[in-house]
Amino acid sequence: MRDYSFDVDFLVHPLSSVLTRAGNTRVISSVSLSDTVPSHVVSGGWLTAEYSLLPASTSTRFKRERSGVSGRTAEIQRIIGRSLRMSVDMQAFSGYTMTVDCDVLDADGGTRTTSVNGGMLAVAIACKRMQERGIVEKSPLKSWIGAVSGGIIDGEIVIDLDYEHDSRAESDFNFVFAENGRIIEIQGTAEREPLDEKVFLELLAESRSCALQLIKKMKTVAGLE
Amino acid sequence: MRDYSFDVDFLVHPLSSVLTRAGNTRVISSVSLSDTVPSHVVSGGWLTAEYSLLPASTSTRFKRERSGVSGRTAEIQRIIGRSLRMSVDMQAFSGYTMTVDCDVLDADGGTRTTSVNGGMLAVAIACKRMQERGIVEKSPLKSWIGAVSGGIIDGEIVIDLDYEHDSRAESDFNFVFAENGRIIEIQGTAEREPLDEKVFLELLAESRSCALQLIKKMKTVAGLE
Amino acid sequence: MRDYSFDVDFLVHPLSSVLTRAGNTRVISSVSLSDTVPSHVVSGGWLTAEYSLLPASTSTRFKRERSGVSGRTAEIQRIIGRSLRMSVDMQAFSGYTMTVDCDVLDADGGTRTTSVNGGMLAVAIACKRMQERGIVEKSPLKSWIGAVSGGIIDGEIVIDLDYEHDSRAESDFNFVFAENGRIIEIQGTAEREPLDEKVFLELLAESRSCALQLIKKMKTVAGLE
Amino acid sequence: MRDYSFDVDFLVHPLSSVLTRAGNTRVISSVSLSDTVPSHVVSGGWLTAEYSLLPASTSTRFKRERSGVSGRTAEIQRIIGRSLRMSVDMQAFSGYTMTVDCDVLDADGGTRTTSVNGGMLAVAIACKRMQERGIVEKSPLKSWIGAVSGGIIDGEIVIDLDYEHDSRAESDFNFVFAENGRIIEIQGTAEREPLDEKVFLELLAESRSCALQLIKKMKTVAGLE
Amino acid sequence: MRDYSFDVDFLVHPLSSVLTRAGNTRVISSVSLSDTVPSHVVSGGWLTAEYSLLPASTSTRFKRERSGVSGRTAEIQRIIGRSLRMSVDMQAFSGYTMTVDCDVLDADGGTRTTSVNGGMLAVAIACKRMQERGIVEKSPLKSWIGAVSGGIIDGEIVIDLDYEHDSRAESDFNFVFAENGRIIEIQGTAEREPLDEKVFLELLAESRSCALQLIKKMKTVAGLE
Amino acid sequence: MRDYSFDVDFLVHPLSSVLTRAGNTRVISSVSLSDTVPSHVVSGGWLTAEYSLLPASTSTRFKRERSGVSGRTAEIQRIIGRSLRMSVDMQAFSGYTMTVDCDVLDADGGTRTTSVNGGMLAVAIACKRMQERGIVEKSPLKSWIGAVSGGIIDGEIVIDLDYEHDSRAESDFNFVFAENGRIIEIQGTAEREPLDEKVFLELLAESRSCALQLIKKMKTVAGLE
Repeated sequence: MRDYSFDVDFLVHPLSSVLTRAGNTRVISSVSLSDTVPSHVVSGGWLTAEYSLLPASTSTRFKRERSGVSGRTAEIQRIIGRSLRMSVDMQAFSGYTMTVDCDVLDADGGTRTTSVNGGMLAVAIACKRMQERGIVEKSPLKSWIGAVSGGIIDGEIVIDLDYEHDSRAESDFNFVFAENGRIIEIQGTAEREPLDEKVFLELLAESRSCALQLIKKMKTVAGLE
Repeated sequence: MRDYSFDVDFLVHPLSSVLTRAGNTRVISSVSLSDTVPSHVVSGGWLTAEYSLLPASTSTRFKRERSGVSGRTAEIQRIIGRSLRMSVDMQAFSGYTMTVDCDVLDADGGTRTTSVNGGMLAVAIACKRMQERGIVEKSPLKSWIGAVSGGIIDGEIVIDLDYEHDSRAESDFNFVFAENGRIIEIQGTAEREPLDEKVFLELLAESRSCALQLIKKMKTVAGLE
Repeated sequence: MRDYSFDVDFLVHPLSSVLTRAGNTRVISSVSLSDTVPSHVVSGGWLTAEYSLLPASTSTRFKRERSGVSGRTAEIQRIIGRSLRMSVDMQAFSGYTMTVDCDVLDADGGTRTTSVNGGMLAVAIACKRMQERGIVEKSPLKSWIGAVSGGIIDGEIVIDLDYEHDSRAESDFNFVFAENGRIIEIQGTAEREPLDEKVFLELLAESRSCALQLIKKMKTVAGLE
Repeated sequence: MRDYSFDVDFLVHPLSSVLTRAGNTRVISSVSLSDTVPSHVVSGGWLTAEYSLLPASTSTRFKRERSGVSGRTAEIQRIIGRSLRMSVDMQAFSGYTMTVDCDVLDADGGTRTTSVNGGMLAVAIACKRMQERGIVEKSPLKSWIGAVSGGIIDGEIVIDLDYEHDSRAESDFNFVFAENGRIIEIQGTAEREPLDEKVFLELLAESRSCALQLIKKMKTVAGLE
Repeated sequence: MRDYSFDVDFLVHPLSSVLTRAGNTRVISSVSLSDTVPSHVVSGGWLTAEYSLLPASTSTRFKRERSGVSGRTAEIQRIIGRSLRMSVDMQAFSGYTMTVDCDVLDADGGTRTTSVNGGMLAVAIACKRMQERGIVEKSPLKSWIGAVSGGIIDGEIVIDLDYEHDSRAESDFNFVFAENGRIIEIQGTAEREPLDEKVFLELLAESRSCALQLIKKMKTVAGLE
Repeated sequence: MRDYSFDVDFLVHPLSSVLTRAGNTRVISSVSLSDTVPSHVVSGGWLTAEYSLLPASTSTRFKRERSGVSGRTAEIQRIIGRSLRMSVDMQAFSGYTMTVDCDVLDADGGTRTTSVNGGMLAVAIACKRMQERGIVEKSPLKSWIGAVSGGIIDGEIVIDLDYEHDSRAESDFNFVFAENGRIIEIQGTAEREPLDEKVFLELLAESRSCALQLIKKMKTVAGLE
């Protein structure tokens, strides 16, 4: 796994924000709070996520998505939002929406897992602050989560793929685990070769181990261990 | 698993088409062939998929996506396309694009797996016809694939969830397997409770078994056993 | 006129639905009911229609209209909606909107008249059900309507043009009649040669005769004769 | 019929332009020539039309159509374009597109027929100029056309309806005739009451008579009698 | 400066309208009143502006902006709206929005300044009428404003640039002044050569002088001197 | 003027990038090079700019502009692009486009001037690198430029307004100067009170002085003094 570092309160305005670095990948994850919920929410609060690449974050300039987003962006946003909703009790912040914005400064593989991890830390800090400021009675934080990507390259398991790895991988999976080691989300494809179950299980185990390390590190950073 | 039936050549015009029924869910999957490829394709052919719900396919009318598609639609299209690309050798139909359109007539859960399965059968038939018509020398079909959804309801494993199941499920996974039993795609979330690995593995095993049955059935329908 | 057949309750969810076949043309017309009306409606209910071609319904794949609809689609939707509004008393379902979705499975000419006819049958059945379910006191059905296309090919009148006819026609008209034989809508163009009034009148008479036959057939199907 | 007046070359830049007044309705119809044709044109030239209401042209301000056009606008544009294509021989200006822009300054009913008539005069003048400037060998003008609206109000035929008439009309038809009296386009709906054929035929006859008067007047204005 | 003429009440429907001619440039500026204000307005009324080129207003046909407006249009609209808001006391028409539509019939340079000037006259007349009709107690008119463009061509100052001037200008500025000679808006760029301050000050002085002449002329036209 | 700092090569991938801080405002300006030019460019290269606020950059979350940009964004982008084009000789990088992306991390007033200044430094460094890498023969850098905002608050001149200043300012101007002190761009409005010319001239002088200081500082940072 690449070196991870977290720079808390990187931005001036939002409730919380984290600049997460994983190797050469850097993502700002921030939490903004609004006192409305989308119409499909019948009780409790809501948490949603948005994901965006800065145009200069990729080796060839990425065209801004100003007339609708690509399928890739839509898919990634959904994974981030779904995963982070599992980390909180949305009944605990009824009437509020937490928007987690994940803006990629530098993309070198693993932007979706880096977004989830930075988002997790930002959400944890936001929960603490909501409690401190009397917005909620008790912290909505339910369980830390951790995200790790993993793939098979030349038959070998590689964890936390950078861009060069990613483009050579035979399969490419993203895992999100709860702090008790249970599975939150699996999303992956055998892009070159169908994957043997035995190999998949090794991948799952190694990914869990890395995710749990990351969760531990994030807790330390948040002073919430 | 619900009853599956396949109605081949349901439509008049496309190269191939299948009306697939899984319980109360019905999807038309069709293959259209064009002699161009997208600009990102450097060699070989391409296969892409689109997914759409008819407005009257859902219990409350579904608003047509006429100014961009939702994240859900984008995500499903990508899963269908990625999975089906693993079933063919795209070098074998260089310069051509196969577009797999999946239009849902009735939605009662499992529309994405039904789309993949109907798409698989339509792709297999299309491959045979491309060879028969001399468009390609040998059939581009590489491996049949089969898709199955599975979830945990009240702690029990349920395969091929209908809408009522789906809305109660604690976790909700979609699996795609190759005919040799290997993993093509896993995409799933623990929407209520993080999932224990042991339970996940049972889910994986049962899903594989059902997917292999489906592949067998589709081969029979195609007369390609 | 081509063979017409009507397959009632083709879909699972909507209030009513009909799969209409006219030769090789097939259209699903369904009625969905919602308990709101558009802001321009000051009293009574409303009926509106949408029209869409499945991508695989045409001989060359038809690109989905996902960023706005073409002028052709807009024009057809308006004709269907205007015509069907004449079949009902909208004061009789105050506060409700009937949405008639016309989705073309196979297009071989005459998709707009097939849509109107299938829509008529679906509307009639919907009206009966609204009354049976106590949503309205008496059926809002005011008059059955029937739609027929007609054109001039090599100087000869042809009724209910298929695609091959349509592309050769010197003029191309669509007629909608009430069950008492009166005119509801005429929309047509002399696409190659201006049309003599005498010939137009013959076209009108033959079209009326066919429309009245269709209405009779639809009433039988609906058991509402 | 209301007073009609034509103000030729109202604009500075286009190949030809006409400000047409019909009662309180005023429309600028202009012809711009470009040396390309749309991809669907396989031989000859093309003529297309666009229609737009100025925001201040209606009694309540009309919102600019800046993110797609309404169905009404789409339908009207198609009628104008279809009708005017019948006035020219498009083989005679191969490789060129004539774009007829119809911009409504004041709307008081009959904007589509006023657009067609102003467009006809602008097209006729454009054809003359294309010949004079050596762009084409002979004038592409094939037949003058004239457009008239007509409706039934309290059982009486009214020709060239203004807005107040239009909102009370039981049926509302638009007719386009060639200079030899033949029918080019009929587009109309019985918006309140189905229309008796006998009454329709009177409407047709009166409309033709008015259209032929208009054609005569336009020819005088163009000096092309 | 080119000849300016103002044709008041050019349109039938809006509260006020002016056709302004500056040389070969012609713009319709109209004021429509609605009894709502945008959500960002916390007290008082609002004034906003829209700007549009007719397709045939330019030497090469200008494509209608039907799927979003260009940056140029957006920028011009903002300048017109900002300037005209300085001419009125928006507290005096609380709850109302004045929409100033500037539609360019012929573009030969200076369309934004011509829009502002025609808009000013239309706003002044609208204010008088709002008072006369009892919509407001006293006229919201606070100060007349006048707009003038100026540039440097071959080192010489030119005021009120036409298109030919504009395309040769080394710098190109737009000035808006209040009737007391003070500055309302400056917006300009040295498009070829950075501009010496001394030359800029001469440009400013000459532009002010012309703007004050224009204001005088507009007052005379409005009978509000 | 607030403290300015420049962090060169803040991003991994683009040709050059600068994180510019002005007080609490932070903007990333980067230069990406592509070997195409827009169709309106007849000779030489091109430079264009894009501007975007991160959602969390503002005190209330800013909604991503994913279906078209606001007028404010469009206007700012144009100012940045126009100004920076004056800093380079576009004939010197024929066939190439420099895209200057300005992404605001924290917004506390002056984001457009901060974008221009960071853009200037990034462009200067990009020019040097283009020469070093043999893409161009000599550096396309023609003149450094510097941007400063200034306004009048309670009758006093304030330079480089932060958000609190900006919202109280009677007038609000943005100036761009060349390194020889000449004027490149002025864009400003008296938002509360028309501005006296004398005061404007003081504002202009102070702004120039600050802009020249900034240019000096940027040259030092670039090592290009």
